[in-house]
Amino acid sequence: MGEPAGIGGEIAIKAWLDRLAMNIPDFFVLDDPDRLKRLGQRIGMEIPIKTISAPDEVAATFPDALPVMPLGMDIDVEPGATNPDYVPAVLESIDRAVEYALSGDVSGIVTNPIHKKTLYDGGFRHPGHTEYLALKSAAGSVPVMMLTCPGLRVVPVTIHMSLREAVDALDTDVIVTNGIVTAEALQRDYGIEQPRLAVAGLNPHAGEDNAMGDDEEQVIAPAVRALQARGIDCFGPAPADTLFHAAARSTYDAVLCMYHDQALIPLKTIDFERGVNVTLGLPFVRTSPDHGTAFNIAGSGTASPLSLIAAIREASSMAEQRDAARA
Amino acid sequence: MGEPAGIGGEIAIKAWLDRLAMNIPDFFVLDDPDRLKRLGQRIGMEIPIKTISAPDEVAATFPDALPVMPLGMDIDVEPGATNPDYVPAVLESIDRAVEYALSGDVSGIVTNPIHKKTLYDGGFRHPGHTEYLALKSAAGSVPVMMLTCPGLRVVPVTIHMSLREAVDALDTDVIVTNGIVTAEALQRDYGIEQPRLAVAGLNPHAGEDNAMGDDEEQVIAPAVRALQARGIDCFGPAPADTLFHAAARSTYDAVLCMYHDQALIPLKTIDFERGVNVTLGLPFVRTSPDHGTAFNIAGSGTASPLSLIAAIREASSMAEQRDAARA
Repeated sequence: MGEPAGIGGEIAIKAWLDRLAMNIPDFFVLDDPDRLKRLGQRIGMEIPIKTISAPDEVAATFPDALPVMPLGMDIDVEPGATNPDYVPAVLESIDRAVEYALSGDVSGIVTNPIHKKTLYDGGFRHPGHTEYLALKSAAGSVPVMMLTCPGLRVVPVTIHMSLREAVDALDTDVIVTNGIVTAEALQRDYGIEQPRLAVAGLNPHAGEDNAMGDDEEQVIAPAVRALQARGIDCFGPAPADTLFHAAARSTYDAVLCMYHDQALIPLKTIDFERGVNVTLGLPFVRTSPDHGTAFNIAGSGTASPLSLIAAIREASSMAEQRDAARA
Repeated sequence: MGEPAGIGGEIAIKAWLDRLAMNIPDFFVLDDPDRLKRLGQRIGMEIPIKTISAPDEVAATFPDALPVMPLGMDIDVEPGATNPDYVPAVLESIDRAVEYALSGDVSGIVTNPIHKKTLYDGGFRHPGHTEYLALKSAAGSVPVMMLTCPGLRVVPVTIHMSLREAVDALDTDVIVTNGIVTAEALQRDYGIEQPRLAVAGLNPHAGEDNAMGDDEEQVIAPAVRALQARGIDCFGPAPADTLFHAAARSTYDAVLCMYHDQALIPLKTIDFERGVNVTLGLPFVRTSPDHGTAFNIAGSGTASPLSLIAAIREASSMAEQRDAARA
């Protein structure tokens, strides 16, 4: 469900409508079926909605109706007007998805955007969605955020902190950990036998032999060597500005980026609509659309479902790959 | 000429060869005609080369031969093997171009890449090409570097320093100065009556209301207000990651970027081959290809002339625009 006052319900409805044209794998929504019906009426997309009580009903339902599994409370929220009263439902939706994923009843989880401030106002005490999932799933390793779009996968090794803090937080071990988790995931979930990682520099021209910063020599190059020593095919620190054009992208499977915008600028420049956020290092597949709750357009019927659709397809493809590897 | 051991001669020859197909305006080269002949033989592109002694000979020469104006010394350099002995010729080429530009005998200057270390070894004592041009031309204002490609213009307000230093160097006045020079140049040299500037934030999500850094509130927003107060149409600080996809690019004519890679990552991702470096704030038009001397491929015949061609075309278009405004 995600934040019910956001665009999550609308893009779920649109994704179901596009199921044939976009070849979307079966999915169901943990949400209030009645609110989705009202939302469909509001935006002029009255689709058939069927209440289900178990994941095994999805296959028979999905071709003809959007399968929705109700939560413990009714949700009556005005689009755009987030309300902490519904935080228990937001968390229930996540918790039940995790249970189904851990039990193997679903192939993976796609999480619609949540609104952090509302969760905090409602008593949530975790840094974010991903950390909460890691806790709930008793993940052994630190979860790693990877962002993907057609043609590019990026892993920011520092994320939601100021640029100044990111520069200070840069650490050889963190880069190595991110590299190991990424390489493992590319093998297991993407079927890439020998993944090739690029490691971006931090400074202009990757420091140009220490002329513009020595983070490359002091912090990043040792991480590249440590990853190589573990048998991971990787190169860097590479100048970030020449790393993202089409020819450069053909030389690697993913880039370890040193800060948020170094990863997100190229990704959103290349494909603004179809970015997917993938959490690596969890015991199950989890993706999410690479956008927020978009309160400003919620309820208007104008939200694009492309990122959610890409997230559903990516989760399905990752799960298939994982199953194939197991078999 | 630029650095004679680099790819400058080769891409000049290729640009002349492409003059009809690429609709390239007349240009001449300040270089040693004999070395260009030898270079043409070496790479299998023996073009007619004609020695000229004044710019007014170019128009009659250009259709049938590459016009070359000799320098004060012969140049016999092995491609890739830079040699400080030729620094006087490198500087002479720049100096004479500046004289012709200041006198109005040429419409603008396109500078092929130089090699800073060789210049330093040869006794050059200026921070760079651009600063040298500013000094030679007695420019009134600080020169501003703008990078362009089809569909995007970016102005990095901090340039060749480490990311840590760039964060510290960020300054309201510097942003304002860059904004004023950029807006004036867009009017004069690009014929944009009311230029629209975007001003990028520094931190992820432009700081998200100070949750991830307050540089936006403390440094960047005051610059945006100061530019607006001068009647310049601008917005920001805008999250950098959502500023460079096609729809976003239609909302502005140029972006003021806070650091090197924030400008160069999107530019080189969008169009790696045709980036042009434009110096604003000089009394004449000056552009250059957005790449270096490429010693590693010099003499091999494999260098792409696309950036030089784009630089020549951009200089010509800017000069025409400037002339039209004067008329």
